[in-house]
Formats: sequence, C-alpha cells, structure tokens
Amino acid sequence: MSLDSPRIDDAIPDTPLESAEALEERLRMIGATRYHDLHPFHDLLHGGKLSRGQVQAWALNRYYYQSSIPLKDAIVISRFRDRTIRIEWRHRIEDHDGAPDSEGGIERWLKLTDGLELDRDYVVSTQGILPATRFAVDAYLHFVRDRTPLEAIASSLTELFAPSIHERRISGMLANYDFIDPSIMTYFKTRLSQAPRDAAFALDYVKTHARTPEERQSVCDALIFKTNVLWVQLDALHHAYVSGFPPPGAFCPETDK
Amino acid sequence: MSLDSPRIDDAIPDTPLESAEALEERLRMIGATRYHDLHPFHDLLHGGKLSRGQVQAWALNRYYYQSSIPLKDAIVISRFRDRTIRIEWRHRIEDHDGAPDSEGGIERWLKLTDGLELDRDYVVSTQGILPATRFAVDAYLHFVRDRTPLEAIASSLTELFAPSIHERRISGMLANYDFIDPSIMTYFKTRLSQAPRDAAFALDYVKTHARTPEERQSVCDALIFKTNVLWVQLDALHHAYVSGFPPPGAFCPETDK
Repeated sequence: MSLDSPRIDDAIPDTPLESAEALEERLRMIGATRYHDLHPFHDLLHGGKLSRGQVQAWALNRYYYQSSIPLKDAIVISRFRDRTIRIEWRHRIEDHDGAPDSEGGIERWLKLTDGLELDRDYVVSTQGILPATRFAVDAYLHFVRDRTPLEAIASSLTELFAPSIHERRISGMLANYDFIDPSIMTYFKTRLSQAPRDAAFALDYVKTHARTPEERQSVCDALIFKTNVLWVQLDALHHAYVSGFPPPGAFCPETDK
Repeated sequence: MSLDSPRIDDAIPDTPLESAEALEERLRMIGATRYHDLHPFHDLLHGGKLSRGQVQAWALNRYYYQSSIPLKDAIVISRFRDRTIRIEWRHRIEDHDGAPDSEGGIERWLKLTDGLELDRDYVVSTQGILPATRFAVDAYLHFVRDRTPLEAIASSLTELFAPSIHERRISGMLANYDFIDPSIMTYFKTRLSQAPRDAAFALDYVKTHARTPEERQSVCDALIFKTNVLWVQLDALHHAYVSGFPPPGAFCPETDK
C-alpha cells in the first residue's frame, strides 16, 4: 500500500531550541516562509492588479481584524497578574482605539474605507464580511484567552515582519490606484513606527521567558498559528473576489471593471 | 458619492417570525439557499470530477469536523440542567465515538480515509489540515459553549438537510470513482437513519422553546452560522486543491492525475 506522505512544514526544522538565539532564528525563519507578504493576493493588491471593488472587499474584511485587535490586547492584559506587563501592553489598546481628542488605528482604517466609498455603518456592522474572516479573527481572540500567557504574547510576533509589508503597501497602492491618496493611508504610516516598538518588546519577552525547548517550541507554534490567521483571511478574499466564488450573504462589489 | 450597496442575504427575508410554523418555513428557506449541497466543490466530488488526491484532501479535512462532533455534543449536554435533554442528546456522542464493542462515526470515517490510503496516524494527528478547517470547526465548538442553549441546539439543524446530500454522495462516489467501494462508505449509510431522528428532535425543540420573534430569529441566525461553518470548509478545499493554492504546511497529495 503506497501511503501518501504528508508534507510537514518542510521549510521549518523541528530540532530542539536550546537557546534564546536559536528561538529568534526560528521565529525569523517562520516569518520568511509563512508571513502573508508571500500571499499572491498581496502581489495583486500592491501591484495595482485589483479592481476598486476587490480593494473594497479587502478593506471591509480587514476592518474586522483591525477592530478586534483592542479586544485581543485587552484579553492579553487580563492574563497577567504582573502589573509591569499590563502597563507595558496597555498603550496597544489606545493605539487602536484612540482617545476623545485623538484618533486611533480603527478610525484611521475607517478613513481608508471612507476613501473607498464604503458606507461606514455597513463597514462597522461587519455584516458583509466573509465567514472565514470572522472565524480566523475569532480564533485569534480564543487563542490569547485559552493558551498560556507566553503563547498569547508570542502570537503578536507577526509585527516583527509588518514594517516591510506596510512600506510596500503604501508605495504600491499610492502608485497604482487612482482611488487611493495619501490622506487615506495614514493607518499604515502610523504602524511603521508602532509595530517595531511593540515587536521588540514581545521578542525580548519570549526570549527571556521561554526557558525550555518545549516552551520555545510553543512560542514558534503560536507564531505559526498567527501566520495562519493572516493567511486564511487572504485565501478567503482570493477565493471569493479573485477566483469569483463569494459565499452566500457576503459583500458583492458593484461591477467596476 | 455613490456608495456600494451591501448585498444583504437577498434570498432570506427578515420579517418578524410570529409563529413556530413561520420559523420552520424560514429554516427550510435557509437550508434551500445556504446548505453546502449548493457548493461547487460538492458537484465536483459527487460527479467524479476530482482526482484521488483531491478526494483525500476532502476526507482528511473533514475528519477534523467529524472528530469534533462528540466534543460539540458534550458541550451541548453541559449547557442543560434539564436531565431529560441531556438524556435525549447523549446518544449523539455514542453515535460518533462508538463503544468498546461497536464502531461509531469516527471509526467509519477512518475506514474512508484508510480506503483512500491515507496514513491513519497522520489523519488522526490533524497535522495536515487546512487552517481554515480548524478555525471553522473550532468556531462551532465556541458557538455552542458561548451562545444560549437554544442557539446551541439550533446550530445542529443542518441535519435537516443532510439525508439528500448523503444519498447523492453515496451513489455519486460509488459510480464515479474506482477507488471508492461500498465498504468504505458506511459512514454515510448510517447517517441516513441517524440524522433525520436527531433533526426531528432539534426542530421540535426550537419550535417549542423559541417563544418570541427575537428568539426565533436567533434560531435562524444559529442555522446560518452553521451553514457558514460547512461552507467555509468547502471554500478552503476548493481554493487549496481545485484552484491550486495550498497554504504553507498543508497536506499535498502525491501527483495522481
């Protein structure tokens, strides 16, 4: 009987992680092979290959992810009895929620959807998003609630890889779409400085607090989980709006090309 | 400014449900417009249009759903202080888990994956499944834990629509694939009698216990949620194995056609 051999993640070795340095190296390898900058949908998005309706679908769905991040961060905070961690993590909520006198990341994302002429109430309702978007994002909330505090922090480490994708997104989208202008891209510009600061803290935390090979492996698995959360969202967009199979009840753009 | 109009679920009205009969009619309408028998992947599967590797991918991923059902049913049971409901629901766990002297649905599903020459340890590990499969199935577990007991029961109502798809699957797969024989299709044959019995109880339960238009709407929304759980799994299979975009780390069939 010829058995089909599983493709375990060929690109990522599973040798024991004996040191903090080995952990960091493995984390960067995971980013290099699994971060969603490698997803074909991003090539289309950044290269100007999408219609306005497809960009709308991306921004609409991604709103559900963005608007869930402060919930995620509040759950992370709730996992720590150590006040110093809570204090360190707290600004993340404000980064996204803003304050009465300052906008945050969610408001900046809504400027993007405004600029794409999506109705704001419709966006905020999340009624037209793909079910796969909801399942993936909700999986992230459940993960930080149910796993260890170490894994909860580790799952944020995709931020290590965010600045380069944001730079490409800003330049690519401004150059390639006449419906995109700098005023609606402020979300990404702000994240260029926020993400590295946050990623540096989280990386230092996991390097210090994962003390056994098993704990270091759990950190890697948390990062792999999170890359899946991001990848699944793009797979679903690609299937629905590039391959052309929107599921029942999902947003359908006006024909625009 | 021309705003894109959302496509709310055109096929399903949102008028208030004033009676148990109106509820049943709406539930059947949801099944007729959203159940996964309408998904293009099932046309390919039942019509003999898939390679053995694509059928393997389907059976491998669907194993995660099948093997999660007794967990789901145990959570449902845990939501009821009413012993009569627990007693009524309990056989569902045995239907899937079996007993020392009798096989259950999970064992029958493994006969299918055995017949497809997938390594049993690999299947049971669920290591090669699509992340979207895991997120969708886990969403179902979270749903029955976090929503009302009424919604938990209502989310099982896709079983109302299961017998016809199982009949088509049995005849279509036996007729169209030389690697499928009757001995490995026993899962579906058994469900032909189990599903209607279970669906009849659940339908009667929601018709009796949903007493306001709002509660009846929550029953409908639970069924829509569940149709999404099923639909997302097929979308992910279609994207990965028909359109040809398997995500990092997922099962890759040997080239077989």
